[in-house]
Amino acid sequence: MNRPQLVEKMIEAVKKLPGVGPKMAERLCYHILKMPEYEAAAFIDAIKKARQEIKVCSICYNLSESDPCPICSDEMRDKSLLCVVETPQDLIAVSKVKNYDGMYFVLGGALSPLDAVGPKDIRIDKLIKRLKDGNITEVILATDMDSKGETTAVYLAQLIKPLGIKVSRLGYGMPVGGDIEYADEITISKAIAGRKEM
Amino acid sequence: MNRPQLVEKMIEAVKKLPGVGPKMAERLCYHILKMPEYEAAAFIDAIKKARQEIKVCSICYNLSESDPCPICSDEMRDKSLLCVVETPQDLIAVSKVKNYDGMYFVLGGALSPLDAVGPKDIRIDKLIKRLKDGNITEVILATDMDSKGETTAVYLAQLIKPLGIKVSRLGYGMPVGGDIEYADEITISKAIAGRKEM
Repeated sequence: MNRPQLVEKMIEAVKKLPGVGPKMAERLCYHILKMPEYEAAAFIDAIKKARQEIKVCSICYNLSESDPCPICSDEMRDKSLLCVVETPQDLIAVSKVKNYDGMYFVLGGALSPLDAVGPKDIRIDKLIKRLKDGNITEVILATDMDSKGETTAVYLAQLIKPLGIKVSRLGYGMPVGGDIEYADEITISKAIAGRKEM
Repeated sequence: MNRPQLVEKMIEAVKKLPGVGPKMAERLCYHILKMPEYEAAAFIDAIKKARQEIKVCSICYNLSESDPCPICSDEMRDKSLLCVVETPQDLIAVSKVKNYDGMYFVLGGALSPLDAVGPKDIRIDKLIKRLKDGNITEVILATDMDSKGETTAVYLAQLIKPLGIKVSRLGYGMPVGGDIEYADEITISKAIAGRKEM
């Protein structure tokens, strides 16, 4: 016997999620099918409502319940400072930091020639437009510290510097609480290069 | 800044799924929020439809689009043979086997005192009722080969034997293609005990 077709379709849909293999998809689907009715309704509703109500802020491209988002409409923030991140998740992480109160821009990814993600596939044009329009004097490039994020940062710096805007990149070094034994050589070498006198 | 509340709620709902931690839930939700509209609609629809249409067969308790399910309504199958499994997924696995054409019964779990799952929490009463009503002459216990499945099989055998019904259990041994180097001792010892002359 095969699985009922509707279960098969459900598994197919769930299998497309990132990091979910066929076995995991099967397990998730059977779990959802076994949920009590009220729980299943709440589950479906949570996904549906978020999809329906969550907007993309037309200024910073963060996800938000309002447009502009609360950060872009916050008059108290420093409008001259712009932090560029890859994803809305990255924005949340940076926004937990106390010593940054500037604005944000979500690129929606990073340049990755191997995955065929070029400058047209992320919001580089929109970022440059915003920089040309606005009164931003410094851009902090907070793309990931991996090769894609690094490539993107280098590319962006080349575009932004000619506009007369200061460009900076997050500093490399050992993470707080980091164990030297398990740190990779490049991180240690960057941490040595960036050593501070005590 | 915190996440929009609707995204937070969505992550909460997804986090409840088995094997999905907070980071994974976050990743899945942002993926769903980024999906194109048609894909998101298909995704939600696949889950909703399966939840609405999939029934539990009133005879074997398998999941099915019809009640009774295709197996229980198949006149060609051997109605005297019953294979007892823990879950609908187990039923699918057994049903792929060519040398079994009997009926099925899905317990809906296994006895597990540590998780407070007792005989009342799985369909043991319903199984016994079916055995008393019907013309089943042999029961194959195909619960998992772990401690819970084993406990359940031993418990069921004690209940079923007095009804004058033959009870058997799946045979232990090395899995096909199994690597002896990586097999656990108990499996190897069972395989030796069950060795076949060549």
